[in-house]
Amino acid sequence: MITSTKNQQIKEIQQLQKKAKARLQQRVFVVEGPKMVWEAPRDWLIKIYVSESLLLQEEVQQGLRQRDCPYEAVSDAVFKAASDTQTPQGIMALVRMPSYSLADCLNAEHPHLLVLENIQDPGNLGTMLRTGEGAGIDGVIITRNSADPFHPKTLRSTMGSVYRVPVFVSEDLNEDIQKLKSHGISLYAAHLKGRASYGEPDYTKGTAFLIGNEGNGLTEETASLADCLIRIPMEGSVESLNAAIAAALLMYEVHRQRH
Amino acid sequence: MITSTKNQQIKEIQQLQKKAKARLQQRVFVVEGPKMVWEAPRDWLIKIYVSESLLLQEEVQQGLRQRDCPYEAVSDAVFKAASDTQTPQGIMALVRMPSYSLADCLNAEHPHLLVLENIQDPGNLGTMLRTGEGAGIDGVIITRNSADPFHPKTLRSTMGSVYRVPVFVSEDLNEDIQKLKSHGISLYAAHLKGRASYGEPDYTKGTAFLIGNEGNGLTEETASLADCLIRIPMEGSVESLNAAIAAALLMYEVHRQRH
Repeated sequence: MITSTKNQQIKEIQQLQKKAKARLQQRVFVVEGPKMVWEAPRDWLIKIYVSESLLLQEEVQQGLRQRDCPYEAVSDAVFKAASDTQTPQGIMALVRMPSYSLADCLNAEHPHLLVLENIQDPGNLGTMLRTGEGAGIDGVIITRNSADPFHPKTLRSTMGSVYRVPVFVSEDLNEDIQKLKSHGISLYAAHLKGRASYGEPDYTKGTAFLIGNEGNGLTEETASLADCLIRIPMEGSVESLNAAIAAALLMYEVHRQRH
Repeated sequence: MITSTKNQQIKEIQQLQKKAKARLQQRVFVVEGPKMVWEAPRDWLIKIYVSESLLLQEEVQQGLRQRDCPYEAVSDAVFKAASDTQTPQGIMALVRMPSYSLADCLNAEHPHLLVLENIQDPGNLGTMLRTGEGAGIDGVIITRNSADPFHPKTLRSTMGSVYRVPVFVSEDLNEDIQKLKSHGISLYAAHLKGRASYGEPDYTKGTAFLIGNEGNGLTEETASLADCLIRIPMEGSVESLNAAIAAALLMYEVHRQRH
């Protein structure tokens, strides 16, 4: 059992929680809590860490047996120090980072995609993955300067969708948008200048939504690449919606039309 | 100019930011940033505090003149200490807390309401107010044990909607739901057991949505008070949506039907 915060594995976990660079270099990330640990695909799992007290639970023992994954016990105090949360749930795991190409987002006959430009809030990004899976999207394309999909807060907000929704990190958004177009996908940008309400277009063919940064919206350059600017109606004095809310309304409109 | 963090007003502001009890006792809350300060109704504003450097800006001077509200300059260092944010925007205000009754939510001919049971995350609550205003709701009813509408994080997430959407704090949800029913309002609960998809009911008459706690959903008691259990379809392995996302989809479905 690990009983010291100076243990090399604990230091490693702390680094991986705090530093995107460490995650990227090793291509490993840390998930916390039973849901996130047990939902991880078996071949992504590297090692599970369980707190001393949680290890006493029969269902945890059973989960570990079923998983047949290396695991280690950690004293409760050290587990708390390693955890990213204020009320640790007693189980975490090192997980291999997936690597997606643009092609991984294009397997469906009529792909339904989200293209996120410079989304900054990890909670927003995670919520978009979770909602996206619910709405049946085929993938998310994010710019390099977006929030990190493997940040602890993003992971928590995904509620496991990070294991199932491909996220492709674009190094050149303009170029990748052209590739989507040549693949027959129509690009829609939620924009204050949009004339069509978001419920008007036909989303039954390949559809991608461009969503911009929380504070500033889409850059003009990216908005100009859209085939169609659409708007979400807003009453009162509301000038914009939260990015994850806007994305949810658009993705579920696609779901409505396709089902 | 205030130049010490020991200044009584600064201590007061810090207390009001940190403690819901202090806010409730004095019925005063603190807003930060130009948008939140300038959008405050004039008769809610008590006093504005501006950082030394922001006070140099002509548009801030002009805003203060137009507002004709008492204000005070604060040195940049002290302003940072008083602020709830890591990157303070240089302006904050003390604001009088509104007091709403259930009747304030029932002014419309066919009220469109959100009823929130034990929502815990201030960001979720604030986002629901913002989205709700956009979707044209007439009010939000929350239980006493919900997140505080005047918590700094809630306020930030509302983006000003807190000034325009009535929020009634219910001391007895069962009783207040009966009052809504006797007012001809139909209650819909998003629930895993729901048979009707959320797009099926007719929401053009009085409509209220019951939304439950982030982790546990609605209590059985409250869910049993609904006239109709509805479901939001979910693909993949998604078991539930974020509460603010679910509320957004429901409220915008009402908007779609009414416009």
